[in-house]
Amino acid sequence: MGLIVQKYGGTSVRDAERVMNVANRIVEAYDAGNNVVVAVSAQGDTTDNLIEKAMEINSNASKREMDVLLSTGEQISISLLAMAIEKIGRPVISLTGWQAGFKTDAAYSNARIDRIDTERLQNEIDKRRIVIVAGFQGINKYGDITTLGRGGSDTSAVALAAALNADICEIYTDVDGVYTADPRIVKNAKKLDDISYDEMLELASLGANVLHNRSVEMAKKYHVKLAVKSSLNKVEGTLVKEVNKVEKMLVRGVTRDNDVARISLCGVEDTPGKAFTVFSLISKENIGVDLILQSIGNNGKKDISFTVKESDLDRVIEILEENKEIINAQEIKFAKDVSKVSIVGAGMVNNAGVATKMFEALYNAHININMIATSEIKISVLVPRKDAERAVVAIHDKFMLA
Amino acid sequence: MGLIVQKYGGTSVRDAERVMNVANRIVEAYDAGNNVVVAVSAQGDTTDNLIEKAMEINSNASKREMDVLLSTGEQISISLLAMAIEKIGRPVISLTGWQAGFKTDAAYSNARIDRIDTERLQNEIDKRRIVIVAGFQGINKYGDITTLGRGGSDTSAVALAAALNADICEIYTDVDGVYTADPRIVKNAKKLDDISYDEMLELASLGANVLHNRSVEMAKKYHVKLAVKSSLNKVEGTLVKEVNKVEKMLVRGVTRDNDVARISLCGVEDTPGKAFTVFSLISKENIGVDLILQSIGNNGKKDISFTVKESDLDRVIEILEENKEIINAQEIKFAKDVSKVSIVGAGMVNNAGVATKMFEALYNAHININMIATSEIKISVLVPRKDAERAVVAIHDKFMLA
Repeated sequence: MGLIVQKYGGTSVRDAERVMNVANRIVEAYDAGNNVVVAVSAQGDTTDNLIEKAMEINSNASKREMDVLLSTGEQISISLLAMAIEKIGRPVISLTGWQAGFKTDAAYSNARIDRIDTERLQNEIDKRRIVIVAGFQGINKYGDITTLGRGGSDTSAVALAAALNADICEIYTDVDGVYTADPRIVKNAKKLDDISYDEMLELASLGANVLHNRSVEMAKKYHVKLAVKSSLNKVEGTLVKEVNKVEKMLVRGVTRDNDVARISLCGVEDTPGKAFTVFSLISKENIGVDLILQSIGNNGKKDISFTVKESDLDRVIEILEENKEIINAQEIKFAKDVSKVSIVGAGMVNNAGVATKMFEALYNAHININMIATSEIKISVLVPRKDAERAVVAIHDKFMLA
Repeated sequence: MGLIVQKYGGTSVRDAERVMNVANRIVEAYDAGNNVVVAVSAQGDTTDNLIEKAMEINSNASKREMDVLLSTGEQISISLLAMAIEKIGRPVISLTGWQAGFKTDAAYSNARIDRIDTERLQNEIDKRRIVIVAGFQGINKYGDITTLGRGGSDTSAVALAAALNADICEIYTDVDGVYTADPRIVKNAKKLDDISYDEMLELASLGANVLHNRSVEMAKKYHVKLAVKSSLNKVEGTLVKEVNKVEKMLVRGVTRDNDVARISLCGVEDTPGKAFTVFSLISKENIGVDLILQSIGNNGKKDISFTVKESDLDRVIEILEENKEIINAQEIKFAKDVSKVSIVGAGMVNNAGVATKMFEALYNAHININMIATSEIKISVLVPRKDAERAVVAIHDKFMLA
């Protein structure tokens, strides 16, 4: 008998039929003798519908009131899921974020979990009840409802697993697990049986769309064993855990990210601290800068290129315009028709041949590389968006990941 | 400068436009220098839609989980209304039932308010914020969400007014106020400027459908001055308050209630306690018995007739069937095609002529009276349902209420 934390996303509970399916799966784990705590998201389109309701009234509503509104989505899910389990005839109780003891900071719409007061949770578990917890939400020190922002329900689940010292945290989603590449792009992409936290972190931030980074970071920090599984079938998923053995496969996966735009500041004065000035202006607005390329100075001038999320581009252009005297560039260029393609693998840092092999794959496919960035466990290249899918396939084939 | 508590029902906030209207009305009171606390119901069909969602999954869900589900309806309303007030540009904050300090007993789906811990409310008022509170809901000693049952939002508003010692509690609804009769039946029905708590209680319980009884009882107990107003126009409503002056008008209103069924136990043994036995069987199931008529015994047998809500009839018949040996009646008869028509007025107890005048009106209209019941401030008669509207008009005319 162990303690299992499960997490089900919005598509997994989008209608009555899916809710009953999820209920059956939870009861299966419970009937096998486990204690089960479940974090659940809002049903299907609920959150979007609520946002639409708000927009009709005030497109600039405070984040506090948006959180009061949006948190109802998960509250609806938990009660319906609890009712489904009641129907099967097992003891169950639903808890909202504040009932489950999720204490967060005060950053409405993007709060961080400070701690979970587990007294109520533990009481319910001790009564051998299945506990259904609203993901994505908590309460701050003012007694106000907060939401955790994107990927919040994954984070809720991992936080529950950490606080309750669970044996495993199972994240149920609409894919079977973590693949070597997006199966929609690469036909022979292969599911990974396991992957390390660091590799998963890189994959998540590179657009693998399976687990949100915050949840993986937290899992790593608190040594929570994660399993990514499909809520639609019984296929074994992917385990995310500390992997210590030497990996047979250097490269674990190939990803593509289209939410990227490139900005080039051409003919900037080549004085110390110029790049710092630019990036500090941008980071002040909480906008993340990703790949950065700085040309070698020439006649006292240099070029600085970098990428941001495409959705941040307009704001970045504004910032650069507002500060053009300080930046003093000859020309500012930007491009949206680019994608970031990356390979990830814990082993690659010790193997110089990996980068060469990646570039060779792209060269053979006649794909131009705009920018390159490397870290300990990943190599990213910026390529024209029209070539991005071909690039993923070419790299996947080259490394024979399938 | 005073403190006003306002209450808006579901139809008053059913869409974005109505929410903006309500927001404007609240701001008007606020800008006049008042502190304003608002209790609001779930939007239009929200509650019905939520119930439907539950029914698809489990038609026999626990009341606890139903309350978790249904309480989201008001939480949606409060956030949207707060956003509308933010848009107008006034300081505002929304509070759920538990945030507003509504402490209730543990009777899920029909909880009673034990007290309101007003600390948070008072803090927000002191900051000159408009406070929007979710009606219909609270929290019990286990930290679980409860709902107050039918008419709950009215009760929430009156409880707020009592706890905060408000100058007035304004109940906004879709009618202008309290009328001498239902304006849909009696064309020349007249709006009352004021009415006493007791008269309002009788009118409410007799089907006037303006205010729920629980809220009027609470208003009477805590001396809360109530105003019933329309949320759709600016017409002066009806004040409900302690009326001490001798009333000019003996009869304040005529009401009709179709949710009534008559049951007759014919040929019951005329022994002491027989009626008590019957009614205790029924009251054990929490079913209210209204008019009671007991014939004078004859040959050791008597007839007992009484009325219940039509919706309770099937259950009452079951109870009588299950206990027919104990009751030992020669025949049990029941009728659904009846209505209760009543006149209400604080002055009538001292004036014997009122009843005579009422019966005369019905006699002249050729309407048969089945049963009669009187209290200090009302006289009710049971008439055939087909004649009920004519009865209301005839009585209204006779007393020249218009």
